[in-house]
Amino acid sequence: MAESEVFVHPKALCESDQVGAGTRVWAFAHIMKGAKVGKGCNVCDHAFIESGAVVGDRVTVKNSVLLWDAVTIEDEVFLGPNAVFTNDFTPRAHVRKSRDQFLPTRVRKGASIGANATIVCGITVGEYALVGAGAVVIRDVPDYALVVGNPARRVGWACRCGNKLPAGLACTCGLSYSLRGDRLSLNA
Amino acid sequence: MAESEVFVHPKALCESDQVGAGTRVWAFAHIMKGAKVGKGCNVCDHAFIESGAVVGDRVTVKNSVLLWDAVTIEDEVFLGPNAVFTNDFTPRAHVRKSRDQFLPTRVRKGASIGANATIVCGITVGEYALVGAGAVVIRDVPDYALVVGNPARRVGWACRCGNKLPAGLACTCGLSYSLRGDRLSLNA
Amino acid sequence: MAESEVFVHPKALCESDQVGAGTRVWAFAHIMKGAKVGKGCNVCDHAFIESGAVVGDRVTVKNSVLLWDAVTIEDEVFLGPNAVFTNDFTPRAHVRKSRDQFLPTRVRKGASIGANATIVCGITVGEYALVGAGAVVIRDVPDYALVVGNPARRVGWACRCGNKLPAGLACTCGLSYSLRGDRLSLNA
Repeated sequence: MAESEVFVHPKALCESDQVGAGTRVWAFAHIMKGAKVGKGCNVCDHAFIESGAVVGDRVTVKNSVLLWDAVTIEDEVFLGPNAVFTNDFTPRAHVRKSRDQFLPTRVRKGASIGANATIVCGITVGEYALVGAGAVVIRDVPDYALVVGNPARRVGWACRCGNKLPAGLACTCGLSYSLRGDRLSLNA
Repeated sequence: MAESEVFVHPKALCESDQVGAGTRVWAFAHIMKGAKVGKGCNVCDHAFIESGAVVGDRVTVKNSVLLWDAVTIEDEVFLGPNAVFTNDFTPRAHVRKSRDQFLPTRVRKGASIGANATIVCGITVGEYALVGAGAVVIRDVPDYALVVGNPARRVGWACRCGNKLPAGLACTCGLSYSLRGDRLSLNA
Repeated sequence: MAESEVFVHPKALCESDQVGAGTRVWAFAHIMKGAKVGKGCNVCDHAFIESGAVVGDRVTVKNSVLLWDAVTIEDEVFLGPNAVFTNDFTPRAHVRKSRDQFLPTRVRKGASIGANATIVCGITVGEYALVGAGAVVIRDVPDYALVVGNPARRVGWACRCGNKLPAGLACTCGLSYSLRGDRLSLNA
């Protein structure tokens, strides 16, 4: 396909007219009307993106990922297979809620969410953070943090390249970082 | 649609003739012949309801929920996205089992099962209990209990409205409760 | 159908020509071109098997299971509903990887993976091991081991029949085992 086109698999369902150029939507995936998906994304089989969800550019949405209204995914995020988000902290079938009662969730640029991770609503996952497979995230995740477990806790720091950083905070890929207080930042 | 009708999305597959009025079945969902689903339910994309499963009235079955034979969901239950049930405690591919060897599971009226929770078979989730996102439930959950973690443990009590109850057991919504032994009940 | 045929549900998508006789592929499941699936398997609704994945004979692939390139499933394995695998230990959306950078995962003959379990790449699940529902497996699992939790730890041993073995390592089904070091084996 031309770079400027959206590819929608014949067995997918794409109802949104706000999907960016070069994005591919695979079999049995469903993007609802009113969902925004950026350019160059890959939306894999059985993924679901609800009206109101916002997805940036060059995002990988692996199979069966579920994204809701009030969830924002920034550019170049990796959402692993079966990663699931929420937007209602106290769901009850008999209680009808309006959109302004949903708790917003944001995954910031370049972060990765591991396979089968659960992201409880109302939190922010920081830039280039790495949420381990199967983690249950119930609070904010700092930039570059590597978190695992249920509930998820920080067990280290992740490089932009994806590797866990060694104690000296210099990655084999060439990048290095500095820790000030409990905040990691990339060295210039 | 009229209140008395069942809505089945053109990309869904509803083979059961025991689905109640006003129930909606969304894209890529599959309800098998012999599954019972009550009135006014919402069965979201990619959900699967097997022959022999029983779902009450006004139940929310969020996306990708999987329900089997021997699972009973009572009225007004909320099943969060990707919540998964089981019916065989010791599954082996080479061992064929008959229906009477499945362990039954029941979710009682008004309870909520969080996103990506796993409900191991043979247990009962009590009325208005709230199972947190990502929890792995391996034993009975008392009425109104709030349970989280892997394995799930009780960390508090939930109000019918969905809020966590404060120490005094009186919710801001107006309802209050009493604890006798380890059993919570609603005050008249 | 005849034993020699493959059954593909009209709403499934089977693009592989390497699927064995007697295998059934159910609604909304997708087997990609280049995936190998053996004889007599059951591939349930919404399952996904990627190019490069290898599945043996008589394997149960329950609903919504996700299998990737570099994942090998041996004969008679049970993959519980929503069980998810991975092949990239350090996923980043902006980092393109070649196939030889994936970490291979193998599930050996007769093992069972519980519902909603997460299998982190690069490990082997041993013969007849039993991974509990909701477990997050991050290291090798010995033959016959019963593992649960996040991260998964061994809490006992499982018989070939699926039962947890009692202290004496003799199952009610008639089979008995011996432990040498930390390795369990079936008595002749």
